[in-house]
Amino acid sequence: MKPIADIAKLVDITEEDLEFYGKYKAKLSPDIWEKVKDRPDGKLILVTAMNPNPAGAGKTLTTIGLSQALNKLGKRTIAALREPSLGPCLGMKGGATGSGNAQILPADEINLHFTGDIHAITSAHNLLAAMIDNHIYHGNKLRLNPKKIVWKRAMDMNDRSLRSIVIGLGDGNGQTREDGFMITTASEIMAILCLSENMDDLRERLGKIIIGYDLDDKPVTPADIKAVDAMCVLLKDALKPNLVQTTEGTPVIVHGGPFANIAHGCSSVIGTRLALKLADFVVTEAGFGADLGAEKFFDIKCRKAGLTPSAAVLVITARALKYNGGIPVAQLHEENLDALRAGFANVRRHIENLRSFGIPVVVALNSFATDTEAEHNLVISMCEELGAEVALSQVWAKGSDGGLDLAAKVVAAADSPSSFDYLYDDQLPIREKIETIVKKLYRGSGVIFSKAAAQTLRKAEEMGLTHFPVCMAKTPYSFSDQPEQLGAPSDFTIHVSEIRISAGAGFLVVLTGSLVTMPGLPKVPAAESVAIGEGGQIIGLA
Amino acid sequence: MKPIADIAKLVDITEEDLEFYGKYKAKLSPDIWEKVKDRPDGKLILVTAMNPNPAGAGKTLTTIGLSQALNKLGKRTIAALREPSLGPCLGMKGGATGSGNAQILPADEINLHFTGDIHAITSAHNLLAAMIDNHIYHGNKLRLNPKKIVWKRAMDMNDRSLRSIVIGLGDGNGQTREDGFMITTASEIMAILCLSENMDDLRERLGKIIIGYDLDDKPVTPADIKAVDAMCVLLKDALKPNLVQTTEGTPVIVHGGPFANIAHGCSSVIGTRLALKLADFVVTEAGFGADLGAEKFFDIKCRKAGLTPSAAVLVITARALKYNGGIPVAQLHEENLDALRAGFANVRRHIENLRSFGIPVVVALNSFATDTEAEHNLVISMCEELGAEVALSQVWAKGSDGGLDLAAKVVAAADSPSSFDYLYDDQLPIREKIETIVKKLYRGSGVIFSKAAAQTLRKAEEMGLTHFPVCMAKTPYSFSDQPEQLGAPSDFTIHVSEIRISAGAGFLVVLTGSLVTMPGLPKVPAAESVAIGEGGQIIGLA
Repeated sequence: MKPIADIAKLVDITEEDLEFYGKYKAKLSPDIWEKVKDRPDGKLILVTAMNPNPAGAGKTLTTIGLSQALNKLGKRTIAALREPSLGPCLGMKGGATGSGNAQILPADEINLHFTGDIHAITSAHNLLAAMIDNHIYHGNKLRLNPKKIVWKRAMDMNDRSLRSIVIGLGDGNGQTREDGFMITTASEIMAILCLSENMDDLRERLGKIIIGYDLDDKPVTPADIKAVDAMCVLLKDALKPNLVQTTEGTPVIVHGGPFANIAHGCSSVIGTRLALKLADFVVTEAGFGADLGAEKFFDIKCRKAGLTPSAAVLVITARALKYNGGIPVAQLHEENLDALRAGFANVRRHIENLRSFGIPVVVALNSFATDTEAEHNLVISMCEELGAEVALSQVWAKGSDGGLDLAAKVVAAADSPSSFDYLYDDQLPIREKIETIVKKLYRGSGVIFSKAAAQTLRKAEEMGLTHFPVCMAKTPYSFSDQPEQLGAPSDFTIHVSEIRISAGAGFLVVLTGSLVTMPGLPKVPAAESVAIGEGGQIIGLA
Repeated sequence: MKPIADIAKLVDITEEDLEFYGKYKAKLSPDIWEKVKDRPDGKLILVTAMNPNPAGAGKTLTTIGLSQALNKLGKRTIAALREPSLGPCLGMKGGATGSGNAQILPADEINLHFTGDIHAITSAHNLLAAMIDNHIYHGNKLRLNPKKIVWKRAMDMNDRSLRSIVIGLGDGNGQTREDGFMITTASEIMAILCLSENMDDLRERLGKIIIGYDLDDKPVTPADIKAVDAMCVLLKDALKPNLVQTTEGTPVIVHGGPFANIAHGCSSVIGTRLALKLADFVVTEAGFGADLGAEKFFDIKCRKAGLTPSAAVLVITARALKYNGGIPVAQLHEENLDALRAGFANVRRHIENLRSFGIPVVVALNSFATDTEAEHNLVISMCEELGAEVALSQVWAKGSDGGLDLAAKVVAAADSPSSFDYLYDDQLPIREKIETIVKKLYRGSGVIFSKAAAQTLRKAEEMGLTHFPVCMAKTPYSFSDQPEQLGAPSDFTIHVSEIRISAGAGFLVVLTGSLVTMPGLPKVPAAESVAIGEGGQIIGLA
């Protein structure tokens, strides 16, 4: 690792604009924006993926490797990534900082407390929760309906026991009521922080959150509770983007990490906009597959922040193709060309979908050690049949050298003419926005709304929120709302069970099926094998 | 403020041993200890206080001001202070970083997230809690009794609604059981971190925490749950002391902040021991009045860490004297010499008590703007009648210049012969340890143990914990367990309601009366007036 000041120098940031967190992490001062805001933007590349097998496709890995390779090609490049959440790192999945020769460093610190951003969001979230119950306790002047408080509590930990709880038991402990915890990355504050342009924007958005309803069923906000300014104070540093580096010394802005189902799953607007002023290329990623992640990146993040992506990279793996071709997880390491052919239907649709946003697509075939040459060749030829640019990506094994072909194709794609546009118009009725996504992208035949969902839809319209984009919360494994419908299903119906109003983030969350916003730990949590090694380094996380 | 590297230089710490958190905060590398451990220790001065009026006595203020004044007298001095907890700062009390011309800086950051230590403790605490319930969920191999889990959850927020809750409701969400949250500073992990000498010690202590009992009523520990190493990983940086500065550029180590009732209420052993190697004088404080704070400082912290204090400073105020003389809070600003005389009984006893530990005592009369000269003169003459050294402290108004007399007297006291010893011997039976404190220090006539307390006492003895010191949890307002018995009550009985085993921290918590480990917010929380000001600074906290 190089001192973070040296990494900052690569993109012309001086020490006076850095706030150091140790030797290898720094926050970027808001003052930088004033100095660079009139520069032209670099090119924005989105890394997204096909529907994944349960082990993931390697989006973060590819984002890091591609940014390293672009730098090697002489393009000044910054990667813009999400912050890992501590809870899941200690639960099922281990770290979220890439791997092999395409990692961000210091990986262990980024995976754990990092610069404290997620802790700050937890604090702001729970301060608001405490102030709500305290308001009720001290007389409830706002006439909040204790049965209609929708603001839960938050913790950055996988703790299923806190999903559904009763609070305020015992004498003198406030109103007894049902409540629950969500993981902090699912907090609307996380989504808000990631969509805010600056502190004023953050303050305004926080003030609009709907925390519950009063006895007349009118929404109540943090502004009513007088919590907004204190929340801003707690979030003051969390709003500043974090600078780290890749294994090859490429600058990386790691900032914000909202859930990819009930939120939009992209790193911060502040970080992305700043990176675009500092670099020729900014490579960023979105959560889950392109049906969820890319759609939200385009229709929520790019729309809200006025960003225009120059190209999309679709990460695919032979394993995910076979999985989508019907092969169980345990057999994914075996060569199976028929399953590859069957599973390619999934890739084809994602390519078509991405093209429908008006931007060029480059397919990155992320190589695994268990892949065979025949598999690689077949996948590449199927892509080429579609007229899609495709490159074998070997960044895990070779770092930037394994991504040069991909990088060259991305540069060419980004230089080619494009006409980016959103999937739907702001002014379309909410119901039609949802139907557009379902029919045009998912290729379903229609949408069925539950009574509760239809009711919230009407409420949102009455509240004048028709112009909000929608944020789909759907299984990442299928285009449909059934995780077992792999490949390229069609003519299915999407069932909307519930709609939640994220009035501060500025979108409507459309839930299909039940949604867990607080993960549980597996039987053997990753935490059991995490330790401090002999030399003081952290082992068992990556 | 000076750059923190310049402050570090004052005590011969070089940049390579600093981990910067912004420009004005740094963590001190564990490598420093190896370089300085063979040096002689500086002199350790404890700042404690008489029983307070509800507004507090100014211990932190005096600790900071005295350390500045000692520096001005040419003594190389470091102050060693506790970290403020975020929750109370946003609740009742505002910040905890001194005030006027005796503050630690950057006050707002120290009062909020600081370097993330308390967040790390929250994470480690809640990881353990999640792993306990997850263990039960996945088959409960250890046969944990869900009705006898004593490890609660923790949050650094004043949130009375979380004191008593039911968790695990709903399908698939684990064992339904009663639970509750404590504020993080009340976590045994905080006490452990503050008593640990190094990472190995921390690991060993964490492994010994009693989290609950199995169906055979045998204690279960984090080691059984396989949580210890992951907890150490989460606490890796929190274990490193933090360096900041006072308004006059005196170095301050701010590290750890355990509750002063169910824990020992002192800053970290690591920080104090390091400071003693780096400075001629180390000025530190303990929680509440001397009956609780000083006793625990001597009998727990000094005993466990092998520290020998050279002198104690007893902070008194005319206001607290009048309060102890029976004057209500609203009238404390009025001159009342009779009440001063009556309240002095409280001071007299504290002086006697502190002397009984074998060290010299200097009384610091912390001056308030509402005090009269007649009041000051009377208090000083009463102290002198007792043969006690006394100095008027005006550090709030004048910084170090207001503390020079106090500092000179502290230097003289620390140079005078002393024979520090603990109040009771390690090997005394637990019951007698408690009786010794009650009779010798509090001047009560005896102790009554509840059935539950007596039962836990027997259990602790069976578990071989007789050698543990005791940690008294008592009202800070009275020598007795009744907060309204002000002044110098005697012949009262102390009622022990419960005893808790802090097997990792290494003490037995003796509860007198009921104890709230999760504060609530007042009707108008401090959070309502906290905001980011025009220039980006935080207002409303101090």
